[in-house]
Amino acid sequence: MEFELEKSTDEAILQIVDLLREKQYVRAREILLDFNTVDIAEILEELIADLGIEKGIVIFRTLPKDVAVDVFSYLDSEEQLDIINGMTDKELHYIIDELAFDDMIDVLEELPANIVDKILEKSTKEERKLINTFLNYPENSAGSLMTPEYISLNTDMTVGDALAHIKEEGMDSETVYTCYVKDKGRKLFGIVSLRTLVISDDDIPLQDIMHTDFVAVNVFDDQENVSNIFKRYGFIAMPVVDKENRLVGIITVDDILEIIEEEVTEDFQKMAGLTASTEEYLDTSVFRHVRNRFPWLLFLMVSSMVTGLIISRFEVLLADVIVLVSYMPMLMGTGGNSGSQSATLIIRGMAVGDIELRDAPLVLWKEARISFTIGLALSILNFAKILLLDGQSVLVGLTVCCSMLIVVTLAKIIGGLLPMLAKKLSIDPALMASPMIASMTDMLSVITYFSLATLILGL
Amino acid sequence: MEFELEKSTDEAILQIVDLLREKQYVRAREILLDFNTVDIAEILEELIADLGIEKGIVIFRTLPKDVAVDVFSYLDSEEQLDIINGMTDKELHYIIDELAFDDMIDVLEELPANIVDKILEKSTKEERKLINTFLNYPENSAGSLMTPEYISLNTDMTVGDALAHIKEEGMDSETVYTCYVKDKGRKLFGIVSLRTLVISDDDIPLQDIMHTDFVAVNVFDDQENVSNIFKRYGFIAMPVVDKENRLVGIITVDDILEIIEEEVTEDFQKMAGLTASTEEYLDTSVFRHVRNRFPWLLFLMVSSMVTGLIISRFEVLLADVIVLVSYMPMLMGTGGNSGSQSATLIIRGMAVGDIELRDAPLVLWKEARISFTIGLALSILNFAKILLLDGQSVLVGLTVCCSMLIVVTLAKIIGGLLPMLAKKLSIDPALMASPMIASMTDMLSVITYFSLATLILGL
Repeated sequence: MEFELEKSTDEAILQIVDLLREKQYVRAREILLDFNTVDIAEILEELIADLGIEKGIVIFRTLPKDVAVDVFSYLDSEEQLDIINGMTDKELHYIIDELAFDDMIDVLEELPANIVDKILEKSTKEERKLINTFLNYPENSAGSLMTPEYISLNTDMTVGDALAHIKEEGMDSETVYTCYVKDKGRKLFGIVSLRTLVISDDDIPLQDIMHTDFVAVNVFDDQENVSNIFKRYGFIAMPVVDKENRLVGIITVDDILEIIEEEVTEDFQKMAGLTASTEEYLDTSVFRHVRNRFPWLLFLMVSSMVTGLIISRFEVLLADVIVLVSYMPMLMGTGGNSGSQSATLIIRGMAVGDIELRDAPLVLWKEARISFTIGLALSILNFAKILLLDGQSVLVGLTVCCSMLIVVTLAKIIGGLLPMLAKKLSIDPALMASPMIASMTDMLSVITYFSLATLILGL
Repeated sequence: MEFELEKSTDEAILQIVDLLREKQYVRAREILLDFNTVDIAEILEELIADLGIEKGIVIFRTLPKDVAVDVFSYLDSEEQLDIINGMTDKELHYIIDELAFDDMIDVLEELPANIVDKILEKSTKEERKLINTFLNYPENSAGSLMTPEYISLNTDMTVGDALAHIKEEGMDSETVYTCYVKDKGRKLFGIVSLRTLVISDDDIPLQDIMHTDFVAVNVFDDQENVSNIFKRYGFIAMPVVDKENRLVGIITVDDILEIIEEEVTEDFQKMAGLTASTEEYLDTSVFRHVRNRFPWLLFLMVSSMVTGLIISRFEVLLADVIVLVSYMPMLMGTGGNSGSQSATLIIRGMAVGDIELRDAPLVLWKEARISFTIGLALSILNFAKILLLDGQSVLVGLTVCCSMLIVVTLAKIIGGLLPMLAKKLSIDPALMASPMIASMTDMLSVITYFSLATLILGL
C-alpha cells in the first residue's frame, strides 16, 4: 500500500538504476512489480530518460507479458514508438493483439504508415476494416474515444445466460460493468448493470430488469458534449450509437477523466490568449510555442495601438496637465481586472451549465449593482489618496475618481455580457477573457478619463 | 433514448405545467418517469421556480418512493430544505433512511441543527455515532467525500462466498464494483473487482485472486490529491483508510467528477483575481460577489499606484516628449499579455503534473528563446509602424522597440518562473496569474521605457 506516490517512485528509480549498473535484472524487476502499472510506466519513462532506450527495452522485456501490455498502454507515444522499434515482430504482434482496442487505436494513430501496414498485414479482413473505421473517426468525436469491446446480450436471455456469457467473454474491468441488450436488428434496446445481474436470480429474463430509459451519444458527437453527460449523470460507461441507433461502441469514465483535463487545459489557454494545444509544455518546440502565442499577442498589440491613437488625440491636454499620465496605469489596470473577474465567472458558469443565455438580464442587473458598489468604494479610497498623499487638487481627484467609477462599471458589464454575446454568435466564449476584455477596457478607460478631464479641468 | 437533452427537458416542463393546470397528475407523472432521475431533478427544480414549492411537493409526492429518493439526492440544497419542510415526519424518515450514506451526510450538513436532531432521534446509538463522525471530517478531505457503504469480504472467503455475500447485501451500483478484503484486525488487505469474481470459478479462494498492490488514501487527505490519484490511475472507486490502515470508507468516481469541476472552477477564479467560491454565480448575493472581488482589486490597484509613482518621477521627460505617452498602453498591454501566456501554461502544467519544480532551468531556457523570438518580431513590426505610419523619428522608434523587446522577454521569464517560485514557497501558483503578472510587468514596462527614453533621446 502506498500513500506517498511521488516519493516511492523516485526512490524506486534510484534503486533500479543502481541494480541495473550491477546487472541485477531479477531484483530490479521485483521492485518494479510492487507498483501499479501506471507507476511502472512512469518509472520506465524516467529510466529511459536517464539511461537511454536500450536499457529501457531490457527492463521492459523482463516484465510479465500481461503487465508489459498494460505498462505499454500508459507510456507516452514517443516512448511507445521507441520500444516498438526495438522489439521483434513477434513481440510487437503480441502487444498490439493484447492491447485494449481503444489503446491499440491510439498507438496506431501515432505510428508511421509503414509500421501500421506491417502490423495490419497479419490481421483478418474484418479486423482491418474495423480498425480502419476507428482510425477514421474525427478527432475529438465520441467515435475516437470509444471501444468496440463491450458485453453484448440479447433480449431473449435470462440473468443466468447473461452471467455465463460474461464469464466466457472475460473483458477488461471498465468495460464489463454495464452490459448492452440488443434486439434482433442490432439496435440498442436496453442496458443492465453487472450489479443487477449479480444480485438477481438466474431465471429472471433480462427484459424484466433492463433499463430502457438510458442515455446514449452519437458516434460523431463532440467529446466535450460526451464529458458533460458523464458529469451530469455520474456514469461509469455510456453507449455510442450510429444514426440508425445501432450500438457501435462504448465510452468508459477513465477516458473521460482525461478528456475533461484536456478540455479544461484548452479553456485555460484560450482564456490567456493562446492557441489551444494539448501537447505538454516541455515537449512543445520553441517554434510551436511561438506559433501558439504570436497571433494573439499581435492582435492585442494592434488593438492597444488604437488606445495609443486615442491618447495622441489628447496630447495638448496631457502636455498641460502632465500629472494625469501617472493615474493612467491604475485606471487601465483596475478596469481590466474588474472586467476579467466578471468575464471569468460568466465563461466558467456557462461552461459548467450554471448560466444560460436567457439569464443575460439577470447577469446585467447583478453586474451593474456589484460594479457600482466596488467602483464607488475604490473611487472614494482613491480620492482620499489623491488629495491627502499626492497633494493634488480636488478637480484632479474628481476627474480620476469619476473615471474610475465609470470604467469599473462599464468593464464589469462588458466582462459579464461579452462572453454571452460570443456564445449567442457561436464564438467560443473562452476567447472573451482577460486579454480581450483588458484591451477593450483600455480604450474605454482613456476615452472616459480624458473626456472627463477636458470637462472637469475646463481645458 | 435521448440525444438532445436540453430540448427534451424543456419540452417536458411545458407539457407538465399545462397538465398541472388541468390537474392531470397521473399523466404528468408518466412524462416525468420517462426521464433519468438526474433529469427529473432538474425538471422539478424548474417547476418549483415557475410554480412554487407547493406544486413541487405535489409532483414530488406522485413519484415512486425509490425514484423520489434518487431525485431528492440530485436537488440543490435549497430545494431539498423546502421539500423537507413540506413533508411529514414519516416521509422525511423514509427519504433519509433510503439515501446513499454520502448523500445523506450532504443533506444533513445543509440542514439546521434542530431538524438534524429530529432526524437523528430515531437512529440507533451506533448510527448516530457514525453520522457524527462523518459530519466532523474537514471540508475538502477524503473523509468528507467517502461513503461507509462498501462490500466488505474476509480473507478466508471463496469466490462463491463473496458472490453470495454481495447478492445478500445488494448495494448501490457505483459502490459494488470493487470489493474490499479485510484481515482479522479490520486492516485492509486486498481488493478484488466484481468482474474478477464473476469470471472466476466459485471455489477459488479470494486470497488467490485479490490484488494487494492497491492504492489507498488517508481519511484526511485533500480532495485535490484524491482526484489526482483517480485521474492518474483511472479508478472507479478507491479505499479510504485511517492512520492504522483500517478501511473506513470508499470514494467513487462519480463524486470525483464533481470535485474536479469544483477544483477547476476555483483555479479559474484564483487566476482571475477572485476569492475562490463554489457557489453558483446567480445564487451568490451581490454582497458576497463584492466580497469575493474587492480585496484583489484593491491590492492590484495599490500596486498600480506604484507604477503611477514611477511615472511621476519622469514627468519632466514626459512633458518634453509627450508622444511617448501614446505608446505606453501598447508596451504595458503586450508585456502583461506575454507574461500571462507563460504563467497560464506553467500553472496548468504544474496542476496536471506535466511540469515539476526541478524543470525550472528548462522552463527558463525555453521561455528565454520563445520571448526573444516573439519580442523581436513584435519590435520590428512596431518599428516599421512608428516610422512609416506615425511619422516619428528613428530615435523614438528605437526607444519603443528596444523597450518592447526587453519587456516581452522579462515578462515571459517572470510569467514562467513566478508560479514555480510560488509553489516552492507553498503559495498557490494559481495566484501568480494574469492580474498579478500584469501588475508586475506594468512596473517593469514604465521603468524600462522611460530609462531607455532618457538614454536614447538624450534627455
